[in-house]
Amino acid sequence: MSVLVAGTPTPAGQAAYRFGIEEARRRGEDLIVFLMEGEHTPASDLGEVGETLEHPDDRTHSPTGDLIDRAERDDISAVVIGVRHRTAVAKLFLGSSAQQIILEANKPVLCIKA
Amino acid sequence: MSVLVAGTPTPAGQAAYRFGIEEARRRGEDLIVFLMEGEHTPASDLGEVGETLEHPDDRTHSPTGDLIDRAERDDISAVVIGVRHRTAVAKLFLGSSAQQIILEANKPVLCIKA
Repeated sequence: MSVLVAGTPTPAGQAAYRFGIEEARRRGEDLIVFLMEGEHTPASDLGEVGETLEHPDDRTHSPTGDLIDRAERDDISAVVIGVRHRTAVAKLFLGSSAQQIILEANKPVLCIKA
Repeated sequence: MSVLVAGTPTPAGQAAYRFGIEEARRRGEDLIVFLMEGEHTPASDLGEVGETLEHPDDRTHSPTGDLIDRAERDDISAVVIGVRHRTAVAKLFLGSSAQQIILEANKPVLCIKA
């Protein structure tokens, strides 16, 4: 089994990645980084946690939908996403991708702030 | 350290409670059930997980705000909440309490569906 983390090149995405490593270690599972955007450099302290990099399907143009589909599969135990602290004005609402993942993913969704 | 779970008498609340027990066990921590509404019966299979029941402050009339304040304290490692599967029409949006907890709680928020 693996923990699936949404990879994004943002402070919240990095915090999600760090939490994903810890969560995989606690569970004795591996980690799949699903790269929503940007580049990914594996952490130097993965230790016994095996990490695999996966990508959305270029043809669908929906990284969020692809992540939700990936989470559906039997090898995934939990999904980790980064959540942005928003500006004072916008802070009452979560981003629509985060909402969609939390509501539609068929697994626990762990929300990490930077 | 303790895992803080939002206790509600709903299928999603029960699923959050079950996940909270597992998460506390994985972390070697205790569990605090913060009873947002209704009654709570401790599970029979807590094992080595110590469970404490806490309540919102009657005077504030804001169980959600009280939960967020409680999560702020140093003894809490993560917050577990139940998330409702909504009707087809409303399923695009998370409930406002869930959004507020995810955005404002100063800890990882683990979202569990029934």
